[in-house]
Amino acid sequence: MSEFDLIDALLADEAPLPSWVSMGPGDDAAVLTLPPDSEWVLSTDTLVEGRHFLPDTPPDLLAYRALAVNLSDLAAMGATPSGFLVALVAPELDVAWCRRFSAGLRAASGSSGARLVGGNLARGPLAVTVTVTGTVPRGCALLRSGARVGDAIYVSGSIGGALAARRLLDTDAASRSGLSTLSLEGVEEGLRPYLLPAARVALGQRLRGIASACIDVSDGLLADLGHLCNRSGVAAQIWLESLPVAEVDPLEAVVAGDDYELLFTVPAGRSIDSAGSDLGLTHIGQIEPGAGVRLLAADGSEVAVARRGWSHF
Amino acid sequence: MSEFDLIDALLADEAPLPSWVSMGPGDDAAVLTLPPDSEWVLSTDTLVEGRHFLPDTPPDLLAYRALAVNLSDLAAMGATPSGFLVALVAPELDVAWCRRFSAGLRAASGSSGARLVGGNLARGPLAVTVTVTGTVPRGCALLRSGARVGDAIYVSGSIGGALAARRLLDTDAASRSGLSTLSLEGVEEGLRPYLLPAARVALGQRLRGIASACIDVSDGLLADLGHLCNRSGVAAQIWLESLPVAEVDPLEAVVAGDDYELLFTVPAGRSIDSAGSDLGLTHIGQIEPGAGVRLLAADGSEVAVARRGWSHF
Repeated sequence: MSEFDLIDALLADEAPLPSWVSMGPGDDAAVLTLPPDSEWVLSTDTLVEGRHFLPDTPPDLLAYRALAVNLSDLAAMGATPSGFLVALVAPELDVAWCRRFSAGLRAASGSSGARLVGGNLARGPLAVTVTVTGTVPRGCALLRSGARVGDAIYVSGSIGGALAARRLLDTDAASRSGLSTLSLEGVEEGLRPYLLPAARVALGQRLRGIASACIDVSDGLLADLGHLCNRSGVAAQIWLESLPVAEVDPLEAVVAGDDYELLFTVPAGRSIDSAGSDLGLTHIGQIEPGAGVRLLAADGSEVAVARRGWSHF
Repeated sequence: MSEFDLIDALLADEAPLPSWVSMGPGDDAAVLTLPPDSEWVLSTDTLVEGRHFLPDTPPDLLAYRALAVNLSDLAAMGATPSGFLVALVAPELDVAWCRRFSAGLRAASGSSGARLVGGNLARGPLAVTVTVTGTVPRGCALLRSGARVGDAIYVSGSIGGALAARRLLDTDAASRSGLSTLSLEGVEEGLRPYLLPAARVALGQRLRGIASACIDVSDGLLADLGHLCNRSGVAAQIWLESLPVAEVDPLEAVVAGDDYELLFTVPAGRSIDSAGSDLGLTHIGQIEPGAGVRLLAADGSEVAVARRGWSHF
């Protein structure tokens, strides 16, 4: 088995590269062409076996997740995905594994526009680092720093679904032992929020010109809102009763990570109608002066929460 | 120790970001602005402990090498470096380690223009994935595919230096046991080609408009020239007597990896004077019709070599 057989397997079912890819895989580097008057958006994220995914995760599910969590960062910037690089470290690889991995990448990219343009293979403990690239019209990137006092706070979809799915995997012996036998099509609805998270790429692009600030909920809603407030120099109040929560206790949902929804702020009086989607966008709170994030019950009293989000390290 | 302390340590001594970085570390993604009429060049490479670097390698030397081998890929494209992302996986980290790692990145970047614009920290077995980005004037990237029959083949600097350095580390107990105590300034001359390889970034840019094809010698000269010939649909002859070899047997040097020199082709009659540098550029062979790479002795007879380059996987 040569490295080139593995690369061929990774690229086997790829469609012809689009016009913006001047050079795809196979040279020292990829070469991409930008639309005029745009800026380049770049992000990277690593998934390590046993820490960010379960050891039995099949290659297509692993690849899907590795790309989706990166696309979520582009979504949070309002960027249009263009290309991505995959740096794959694995103890061993074969052609069948690579073909399934490749299928997972294609599934996660979907209609987002992101195309595999390069990467690297290395031998070592299983870990996948994806670097995504995208574009925004010049000056239109959705930053964490743009929230202002009085802005409304919204979240897309619902939170807590990934936590519910992880619990199912942890406690349901059938789900866990069945994990290694799953393929992309066979993932039951309840496991999808964790195993196959959907990056809100189209929504992010629609939020350009609407949202004053944006972040993806990967570390937990309270933690990520805290990041946004820090960068914006503001505080926030969140209304517990308003939170769109899936299947778990709302107090757990706000500190659980891995949901990959978009959390964004909108200046008072600005309509979000043109951002609307079948995801649902929920008004969950308000930006206020000061620092920090307060979670408020229906009677206006502050609710204490135990743990604030996922620590990367 | 929080993740943010570590990130602060990684960014502590960074100079203010240049004008082309609209958003550096701290948001969901980095945002870069391109010069007009340019294309974007992207590459990624992972170093895994025990496979691509010795377990005792200090953090500044590790960071230097991780960035340099990536910058070498930009050099081989003739690109001007702009930004890079670091995805660091480590079993544990502290502020002192991160500060030394950061110093290594700055040293490797040197005057290349590459700036740290983002990254990711994750817990796991030590590995560093760097993604580099750069620009080339539209249509000016140096590809592997441009070599034509009759082109002259050149290599920069000398080859075999990295192999000699690895031998010194493997056989000289003092060097090996001293590795963990080294800092950037303390690396003796003989170890530098392996521990602190110099990416030929300035040379790569000067080769735009001169070289018809280019690749960096990271897998071994014969192997990399083979890649270039494959992509160009040509063959090559290399003159053993002409090879600039440092300290090892030329037959070992041509199959040893890690030299990070540039191997490039130049159409007959085109001057390389304006690419000249104190590195030295040596005419080592000729592109010819057919496929494959032949190594020729002074009498014109073909020389057999045992092993053709580094296998990534």
